[in-house]
Amino acid sequence: MADDIRTQALACRAAAQHLAQLSSSAKTALLNGMADALDADAATILAANTRDLAAAEAKGTGSAMLDRLALNPSRLATISAALREVAALPDPVGAITRDDIRPNGIRVQKVRVPLGVIAMIYEARPNVTADAAALCIKAGNGVILRGGSEAIHSNTAIAAALKRALRDAGVPDAALTLVEDLRRETMLELLQLNEVIDLAIPRGGEGLIRFVAEHARVPVIKHYKGVCHLYVDRAANLQRAVDLLVDGKCSRPAACNSLETLLVHVDVAADFLPQAGKALAERGVQLRADAHARQWLPQAAEATDEDYAAEYLDLILAVRVVDDLEQALAHIQQYSSDHTEVIVTEDAAAAERFVQALRSAVVMVNASSRFSDGGELGLGAEIGISTTRLHAYGPMGLEALTVERFVVRGEGQTRR
Amino acid sequence: MADDIRTQALACRAAAQHLAQLSSSAKTALLNGMADALDADAATILAANTRDLAAAEAKGTGSAMLDRLALNPSRLATISAALREVAALPDPVGAITRDDIRPNGIRVQKVRVPLGVIAMIYEARPNVTADAAALCIKAGNGVILRGGSEAIHSNTAIAAALKRALRDAGVPDAALTLVEDLRRETMLELLQLNEVIDLAIPRGGEGLIRFVAEHARVPVIKHYKGVCHLYVDRAANLQRAVDLLVDGKCSRPAACNSLETLLVHVDVAADFLPQAGKALAERGVQLRADAHARQWLPQAAEATDEDYAAEYLDLILAVRVVDDLEQALAHIQQYSSDHTEVIVTEDAAAAERFVQALRSAVVMVNASSRFSDGGELGLGAEIGISTTRLHAYGPMGLEALTVERFVVRGEGQTRR
Repeated sequence: MADDIRTQALACRAAAQHLAQLSSSAKTALLNGMADALDADAATILAANTRDLAAAEAKGTGSAMLDRLALNPSRLATISAALREVAALPDPVGAITRDDIRPNGIRVQKVRVPLGVIAMIYEARPNVTADAAALCIKAGNGVILRGGSEAIHSNTAIAAALKRALRDAGVPDAALTLVEDLRRETMLELLQLNEVIDLAIPRGGEGLIRFVAEHARVPVIKHYKGVCHLYVDRAANLQRAVDLLVDGKCSRPAACNSLETLLVHVDVAADFLPQAGKALAERGVQLRADAHARQWLPQAAEATDEDYAAEYLDLILAVRVVDDLEQALAHIQQYSSDHTEVIVTEDAAAAERFVQALRSAVVMVNASSRFSDGGELGLGAEIGISTTRLHAYGPMGLEALTVERFVVRGEGQTRR
Repeated sequence: MADDIRTQALACRAAAQHLAQLSSSAKTALLNGMADALDADAATILAANTRDLAAAEAKGTGSAMLDRLALNPSRLATISAALREVAALPDPVGAITRDDIRPNGIRVQKVRVPLGVIAMIYEARPNVTADAAALCIKAGNGVILRGGSEAIHSNTAIAAALKRALRDAGVPDAALTLVEDLRRETMLELLQLNEVIDLAIPRGGEGLIRFVAEHARVPVIKHYKGVCHLYVDRAANLQRAVDLLVDGKCSRPAACNSLETLLVHVDVAADFLPQAGKALAERGVQLRADAHARQWLPQAAEATDEDYAAEYLDLILAVRVVDDLEQALAHIQQYSSDHTEVIVTEDAAAAERFVQALRSAVVMVNASSRFSDGGELGLGAEIGISTTRLHAYGPMGLEALTVERFVVRGEGQTRR
């Protein structure tokens, strides 16, 4: 009989103590060993994936979902290459972020330590099983992986390879625990274990994320959606604005850092909107615009309030003409999902006002919203994006999987 | 009719937007204005406190509790002086914690911004009303204060003074919101407002903190208790160990950073325990020791498992003789509340092993556990101590009331 979820989580926590003690070089070797194990088990993993795909097809799963689920030798090689990249990243654990001698002579340091145990709750993509495990383990954390039922065979095969690498490195393999009991009540039980699990990160659709956030007693870092705005200021370089708009909307519409709403200063609307409309039409983008913008965008449908709140994740864009920067800011403050906002302007004061006034996780001046990504921002990798305004805000790399604690060294100093 | 709690919280959030935009010098002036307002209202505040004290006495409240509740001109002057100290602290908001040019030329900065709205849930001490408000506001946050019913008149008078200072500075006074409806169901409603409140910090007894942690849907940073350990290693300087023990146990027994358990290496037990026993007996400390330790501590009662788990907050100490450092570590790992642990040793390797093996928020070598305090560690002030292994771990200063977000500046760079 399988252990219950609490027993499994406690075993993961105990194993995580071993991980937390590993040196940086030992962790690098472990991560490379995990990549080797994936390569060695390629045939087994692909066979397991074939079973998942067959079951999904039999259930009439759509082609987009099947594509997300599918592995092949090339995709698997990409996954193990990603593990080797994580292996080569600097170790966040042990970094000293403060070092201070107090007047009484005690030395106070803040030092990064692992969080402890991280629960990843995610949907179909089996690559998350390897990617998330690698990042958590690189930062010295135990990881509990609860993937979707569609990918259960693929995930089990991937986890088996990774667990073998852990054992080969002398780490109890419970440090990586794949939840095989996918009943919803078991996930609920997992999310109640606040004395065992230090953080839950849900990744997937808004429904899954809301379910986790609403039912968890463990801390959760999440983002529901990315309603990203591009504001074209009166002082914008308009050609640059067209480029940033096309890149932000069209380079990967299904990504959360893609643009959903374009705001245009009224003074440049007559110049900018016809150019923008043409460039977007060439790429098949549908427009939903306010009455003012539709003067220059005859092809646009009328925008509703829902359009301004929507994360389309598709070739659809909401458009609005605003009277000035302040109206753009008010619009963003009303509809923002706290993800990423962009201003296009040559006016340094306008850029500064935009940056200061908005509370979103990522605010950009004259750069594509699509850079709102851990890799692009230089974090080395990304475990997720937080729009929770605590611990981490925006793309989360390895540092976000650690916490700073205090180490104090004295020579017998007392308070009295 | 009073606004409901959600309406109040939304007003606080809107007002917090104003606070977030204030310059450092404007916040300094505001905090000094808050201190002035407290001084100006001293008579009103003391009269309100007299009402609270009379009501508490009529209810038969104990003298320790009455003392915590009581204000007088000198205590009030201490509170306004503390506000002026907070005013003078460096502003954490706007600090750039990362500044990096990516290969494509975009400049990526991480910049501290306020968390947003912080809810403080606390018990009798009225000084928390002023202290917590000052720290939250200094870091640009709105604050919702929910104190105990015993201090309601004092808290209302203090809040009235502070709110006047906010208005005088042109900030909507909802930025500081004192909850006057103290029904438990209203607190529960407050703790559900996860779209409005960014963080709840409970301060008080373990019962209050567990109640908040169990019912909150907003993020909570808390510590339940401080079961702090002092381990006297084989290589300890024994006189130093006695000093650290006496300071840690006796200088303020009711503080969470006071020692609760003494662990002694067997090789030095015969030398150390008689000295320690004598020093503690002189200060009226009761001992609960294991059989081994009682050989040298005849006055000690027999320690139970509960003793090793207890936070006495009193002149009582649990004692155990251990075979070696590893047994000391195992004991601490079993009973620790993740607060503060101390090793006394002249052996650098033993000190390093102690620091690395333990996951507590503060780990000390040859220094008193009583330094586990925001002021003593150089944070300038303390809003609380976190044993939650996320966002902040250990004493929390102003930085812990902010989060880092990304600001990106480019010249039109696109991803494709």
